[in-house]
Amino acid sequence: MPFGLKEKCGVFGIWGHAEAANLTYLGLYALQHRGQEGAGIVSSDGRKFHLHRGMGLVADVFGEAELRHTLPGHIALGHVRYSTTGESSDANLQPLLADYRGKISVALGHNGNLVNTDILKRELVEKGVVFYTTLDTEIIMNLLTISLEPNFPDALAEALLKVRGAYTLLILAEHKLIGVRDPYGFRPLCLGMKDGAYVLSSESCALDLIEADFVRDIEPGEMVVIDEHGVSSYKPFPKKHKALCIFEYIYFARPDSCIDGYSVMLARKALGRRLAGEHPVEADIVVPVPDSGKCAALGYAEEANIPFEEGLIRNHYIGRTFIEPRQSIRNFGVKIKLNAVRQIIAGKRVIVVDDSIVRGTTSRKIVGMIRRAGAKEVHMRVSSPPSKYPCFYGIDTPVRWELIAAKHSVKQISRFLGADSVGYLTLKGAKDAVSGKKD
Amino acid sequence: MPFGLKEKCGVFGIWGHAEAANLTYLGLYALQHRGQEGAGIVSSDGRKFHLHRGMGLVADVFGEAELRHTLPGHIALGHVRYSTTGESSDANLQPLLADYRGKISVALGHNGNLVNTDILKRELVEKGVVFYTTLDTEIIMNLLTISLEPNFPDALAEALLKVRGAYTLLILAEHKLIGVRDPYGFRPLCLGMKDGAYVLSSESCALDLIEADFVRDIEPGEMVVIDEHGVSSYKPFPKKHKALCIFEYIYFARPDSCIDGYSVMLARKALGRRLAGEHPVEADIVVPVPDSGKCAALGYAEEANIPFEEGLIRNHYIGRTFIEPRQSIRNFGVKIKLNAVRQIIAGKRVIVVDDSIVRGTTSRKIVGMIRRAGAKEVHMRVSSPPSKYPCFYGIDTPVRWELIAAKHSVKQISRFLGADSVGYLTLKGAKDAVSGKKD
Amino acid sequence: MPFGLKEKCGVFGIWGHAEAANLTYLGLYALQHRGQEGAGIVSSDGRKFHLHRGMGLVADVFGEAELRHTLPGHIALGHVRYSTTGESSDANLQPLLADYRGKISVALGHNGNLVNTDILKRELVEKGVVFYTTLDTEIIMNLLTISLEPNFPDALAEALLKVRGAYTLLILAEHKLIGVRDPYGFRPLCLGMKDGAYVLSSESCALDLIEADFVRDIEPGEMVVIDEHGVSSYKPFPKKHKALCIFEYIYFARPDSCIDGYSVMLARKALGRRLAGEHPVEADIVVPVPDSGKCAALGYAEEANIPFEEGLIRNHYIGRTFIEPRQSIRNFGVKIKLNAVRQIIAGKRVIVVDDSIVRGTTSRKIVGMIRRAGAKEVHMRVSSPPSKYPCFYGIDTPVRWELIAAKHSVKQISRFLGADSVGYLTLKGAKDAVSGKKD
Amino acid sequence: MPFGLKEKCGVFGIWGHAEAANLTYLGLYALQHRGQEGAGIVSSDGRKFHLHRGMGLVADVFGEAELRHTLPGHIALGHVRYSTTGESSDANLQPLLADYRGKISVALGHNGNLVNTDILKRELVEKGVVFYTTLDTEIIMNLLTISLEPNFPDALAEALLKVRGAYTLLILAEHKLIGVRDPYGFRPLCLGMKDGAYVLSSESCALDLIEADFVRDIEPGEMVVIDEHGVSSYKPFPKKHKALCIFEYIYFARPDSCIDGYSVMLARKALGRRLAGEHPVEADIVVPVPDSGKCAALGYAEEANIPFEEGLIRNHYIGRTFIEPRQSIRNFGVKIKLNAVRQIIAGKRVIVVDDSIVRGTTSRKIVGMIRRAGAKEVHMRVSSPPSKYPCFYGIDTPVRWELIAAKHSVKQISRFLGADSVGYLTLKGAKDAVSGKKD
Repeated sequence: MPFGLKEKCGVFGIWGHAEAANLTYLGLYALQHRGQEGAGIVSSDGRKFHLHRGMGLVADVFGEAELRHTLPGHIALGHVRYSTTGESSDANLQPLLADYRGKISVALGHNGNLVNTDILKRELVEKGVVFYTTLDTEIIMNLLTISLEPNFPDALAEALLKVRGAYTLLILAEHKLIGVRDPYGFRPLCLGMKDGAYVLSSESCALDLIEADFVRDIEPGEMVVIDEHGVSSYKPFPKKHKALCIFEYIYFARPDSCIDGYSVMLARKALGRRLAGEHPVEADIVVPVPDSGKCAALGYAEEANIPFEEGLIRNHYIGRTFIEPRQSIRNFGVKIKLNAVRQIIAGKRVIVVDDSIVRGTTSRKIVGMIRRAGAKEVHMRVSSPPSKYPCFYGIDTPVRWELIAAKHSVKQISRFLGADSVGYLTLKGAKDAVSGKKD
Repeated sequence: MPFGLKEKCGVFGIWGHAEAANLTYLGLYALQHRGQEGAGIVSSDGRKFHLHRGMGLVADVFGEAELRHTLPGHIALGHVRYSTTGESSDANLQPLLADYRGKISVALGHNGNLVNTDILKRELVEKGVVFYTTLDTEIIMNLLTISLEPNFPDALAEALLKVRGAYTLLILAEHKLIGVRDPYGFRPLCLGMKDGAYVLSSESCALDLIEADFVRDIEPGEMVVIDEHGVSSYKPFPKKHKALCIFEYIYFARPDSCIDGYSVMLARKALGRRLAGEHPVEADIVVPVPDSGKCAALGYAEEANIPFEEGLIRNHYIGRTFIEPRQSIRNFGVKIKLNAVRQIIAGKRVIVVDDSIVRGTTSRKIVGMIRRAGAKEVHMRVSSPPSKYPCFYGIDTPVRWELIAAKHSVKQISRFLGADSVGYLTLKGAKDAVSGKKD
Repeated sequence: MPFGLKEKCGVFGIWGHAEAANLTYLGLYALQHRGQEGAGIVSSDGRKFHLHRGMGLVADVFGEAELRHTLPGHIALGHVRYSTTGESSDANLQPLLADYRGKISVALGHNGNLVNTDILKRELVEKGVVFYTTLDTEIIMNLLTISLEPNFPDALAEALLKVRGAYTLLILAEHKLIGVRDPYGFRPLCLGMKDGAYVLSSESCALDLIEADFVRDIEPGEMVVIDEHGVSSYKPFPKKHKALCIFEYIYFARPDSCIDGYSVMLARKALGRRLAGEHPVEADIVVPVPDSGKCAALGYAEEANIPFEEGLIRNHYIGRTFIEPRQSIRNFGVKIKLNAVRQIIAGKRVIVVDDSIVRGTTSRKIVGMIRRAGAKEVHMRVSSPPSKYPCFYGIDTPVRWELIAAKHSVKQISRFLGADSVGYLTLKGAKDAVSGKKD
Repeated sequence: MPFGLKEKCGVFGIWGHAEAANLTYLGLYALQHRGQEGAGIVSSDGRKFHLHRGMGLVADVFGEAELRHTLPGHIALGHVRYSTTGESSDANLQPLLADYRGKISVALGHNGNLVNTDILKRELVEKGVVFYTTLDTEIIMNLLTISLEPNFPDALAEALLKVRGAYTLLILAEHKLIGVRDPYGFRPLCLGMKDGAYVLSSESCALDLIEADFVRDIEPGEMVVIDEHGVSSYKPFPKKHKALCIFEYIYFARPDSCIDGYSVMLARKALGRRLAGEHPVEADIVVPVPDSGKCAALGYAEEANIPFEEGLIRNHYIGRTFIEPRQSIRNFGVKIKLNAVRQIIAGKRVIVVDDSIVRGTTSRKIVGMIRRAGAKEVHMRVSSPPSKYPCFYGIDTPVRWELIAAKHSVKQISRFLGADSVGYLTLKGAKDAVSGKKD
């Protein structure tokens, strides 16, 4: 499983609200784009923990019974998990609930990816540790338990000093809600306030939904402890250069979120403008792949001064259980979701913009669809870099489109897609764009 | 129930394809926007009819069992029904299946609204007719049966000569698939071809999905009979002036459909441009209400030469069973679906464009959301006429936003919404725009 | 479809109770054995009718929403429908709701089978009547409508004078709940009282469940009209000899019901005793097929003075969606439901008692199962007559086991089942037993 | 949670069959009476483990997808879990899947109850062990891991030497299926063979369903290891006197199972006969509470020479989602499931037999129901001992009916139930009965 995919989870927690579980439900709902495979909430009144987890969308995992009766208490912590092929099992759902030193319960929700799990796991196994899941979270739980620090937050800091990699953690323990962002700040986490209660969320869009005020981003390397005394901030880790994952801006986050002070939508428009600068082409219209390419396409169109047109329409009534028709008419694939608008496209030179190409099969169908709608030319533009590359802050990142870009040249890709040209944003262009730098 | 709502159903039929029911399922899927309350398909091998109907979305009504086993045959006819409050009952699902003169089965699917049902019903009741539903379709079925014409299509024509109003009908009978569009052509119907089989569909977007070729629109007052001899066309009704319902272009149809030769998306952009001409205002950005105001907003932005921005983001992971939180945090309403992008909106004079205002409560929340995101001014622009009016072709039309616009002045509406200004497109403007006329 | 199967529906109605729909739900629940394919309830406050119907078991068709909100009013009428192969469609669900002479709503629930439907249908079709279902109920509704009697109960009586066959009808109309039992009294119907409200039910076991008092059986040919004046009784039909269907006692009804003054369980025990008299055999134990053969087996064991043993155990945790295993281990069939108790059966001469044999395949598996458990001899005894025969009161009855008994001799059946002997009760024996006559 | 309840789980495993998961599904299905709260299956091809678990009945947890695709391999291990109030969480589902020493996967399914968990847990916690569930299984897993024995079966034996209490364990590890029964043999386990593959099952009724041959019972203190070399048997524990839990015979097991050479049904009949000897009473009929009291009632009736009658009828169409009616007609409770047959009971002196009384509320309703049906006298007879007692083999057993019998005298219970008399079987009587001893 590529690193990128594993990353994409969401966490949300709240301390001190009578409707803690309900608000967490709403928060997870707003973070649903960060993970659709499963969801879970742990709630607590400070003494007893209550857990409900399940496979599927937030709105399907939590019914009236769970929200009304199963999850009481004024503290809650929730998690949404990304759908990954392969290791799909209920055993891997979060939050992870465990006993801490046989006495208190601890709930953990994790968004991130540790890079030294093999060695940590080996050491722990030698100590006789049993592993029940493939979650990094379980490693952290065990490190936490074997720490010699008597105080919980100190033990947590000690445990986290041993791990390397990306993590944003929410922990419920000892009547405290704790949030930690790794020293690089790879994954986002922000603090909000709702009716006097503190909220921690992967993205600010979840604060908007529950009408919480945005207070600030949690800093890289910061640990915040929320309890009846309010928010305390700690910086237990050696300082590193900040390194928010660029893919948060490119495609992970929701465009209405604002991460580390920069609007995701503005970042995407900047990526699109930069893309126009790097890969200009004479054309009549710029068409986004809805909804993934929308923001970048707007930026591209502005920069290139070419009309922006909604030449692809997305069908939103897909429902959960679409039955593919039989053999003879199978393989509708992307047609179920998208349709080209002939009268917009016919006779035009079309620039189609998306945020990425994964296997290329979907993009190929989209290009074909645009051609069949009568386009004279189809130019594919992608608002992210094309290939596997070492993450610019030192963490190795097999990105999600390696499948095609890692093994093929842009020319080969163009031919596979049936496009007249393909242009990927350069890594430098992407970095500059999200840093707000102009060429 | 206002006229407009009742109108919004969808029909799809196919004759002569081994996968008739499967393709009809896909066709209904593409027509889902025309009705989400229920769906049904009748299939036939020319001798026996098979029926499956149910409440809910197409993808939920039809499972693997129904598509694989329950609906055999090379002819099929499907219907999607709009969700209306009040008369929601399984008894009102279509297609309606009945015996014709005790011998042959007839299946009818109807999109439309008859205006002389009271008098027709009274006459039929006097003859001893029993009614089981509140469907206009049932009246047509009875008129058909009491016709003296021995030939089925002739009887159908005779029956339809007695009804007044809007109808697009698909009928399966005597091994024939028949499509009829009322003399005014109020509702759309088009003909396509897939692998040698003929297809009838409310909108062309359904032809695109199944990769059928668009052949032509069925003309107002035209009856087409499809059987083993191909398509025969009849014009059994006195000629009327064409009067496709303007609301098909304004908001009923999908933007990727083309109705009576005019692209719905181009029509909507033209409505937006006209709206910019009628209600100009100095502003910094044009923001659509997604997805309903998207096309008109693009047209408005082009005409007004003001930047188009995606300042409202729609959450697509709503799922089917969203549980509203308890009392104290209830009433999230539109916030569940939409969020404003502060960094796009803050400090800006915003023109927000939608296709209609119904009760005003949703629009009010949207205006408030934009204001809270920091807009300096909010100007609401609506790409349809404001009030109840006699349909310009003589059919009385209580339109769907009568609820607010019928009883209040634009000024009052503006105050209710909390907007700096509100501008509705004029009826003349709407008519000109969809006729392609420039001012 | 054999006559017998079509018969097996259940009706329940109540007039004047604040919890009318809820009690009807419970009533249908107790009548579930009379029909598992679908269920429906119509409720009324005397002015507006509310309908909910669906395919499946009562507990699945009606959820909290339906019982709490969808079905208000103090009058209710419910129906459970038997699962028949072939004509399984939502269009055939009952109660049937229709307009009576264009003015008032009528709801009908029917348990029975008309024998002159063909001629009645032909006459109605000539009058221009349209049929939407294959239900006899629809014919009755049309006869009712064309009656010249101005008063509803009179019109109903006139309509019913035209039909021949078996029917137990419940009708809701004009703020009245009407119950009718055909002149022969083929199907059961009884009257009860609960908290001052009158109840009509196919069987008395439904009265027990809602803790209603049993008042009396409705007489053959009796029509009772329940409204604010209480119960009025009419006898609009020419008197016939009473002819309750013998199969109600043999296997339709629940053993805890009492029909026309005779306990179903006592009747079944009498059938078993008679069977022992007609087909004695030397054996060690009498084993019922659970639960269908239980009562008759008790009677047989008593009469024959042979120990009664529970040698077959039924698994009650079947659930709704049992997935048959793959090819290689398929065909578990009856084993999923039943298992033989080796220690009871081994080395014994076993008399196994059931209420009927339909196709013989299930009985064959049971005989085999008993043999594999070590039985020395297996003697099959059946507490109903073997073959297709004209019903003893003149109504032609193709009974449900015609499939094997109609075409094969008892000897052939015995060989097919692998039994040492097979004994069917004679028709005379069955008649005597349910009349309480001793030989 | 009382000990007794926790006990009631079921395990099933198979080694070397192409349909391993499917057969395990069927096996669990036959063991469903041992646990209805949840179910799980682990399958393996010897290298990779596949897991599916869920809350609910076996037939609902496993759908076509799971059985056809999710669980490949020729080895499988399944578990059904009893529904207990309180600790109902998906985290407690079994089989438990874990890593053994960081290398190999281990799956455990457990039926039993350890008595020294507190001390074991404390020791493990001091070693830094983290606990994620409240399952005894998790303790065993950790003991297994810290064992110094290099060989897996040896490590397992070492681990189990530390635990005290009742356990029947199935383990999948290192391409082996291992079954262990604790030294007392408190819970049952038997060995079968199907198509050359070995099967382990809590009860023999599961072997019957899959048409496997019964080979033998696993002995108390025996560990069997099944792999490609067949079955190896070990006796790693000090010998104890055999102590199969008497409640397996009284009510846990299915009557068609045979445990340690004694038929459960025969044992129950013996309990009933003994009960008749201990608590005789002059009466007209013996009526079982279906289905729990059936076998004992037959034994009672035989011994007392009083007619056995089915005076209570059970409704089997309960379905999954029964909605209790509103306030005014609530509390149907046992009436939903049972009804008394008036014509059997009226005027009679009735002995009603059940296998236990838990809270007494259900028994009270049953006694009331029989009285309302006209019984002259009602005598309750219970085929198990009345009170909390130290298990006769030294394991403390708070039995499931402590709730009423622990705090009240038989006289008080009789008054509470409204019975004319109540008689519980003595502990000695129960022991003698299941040992096959006559007084």
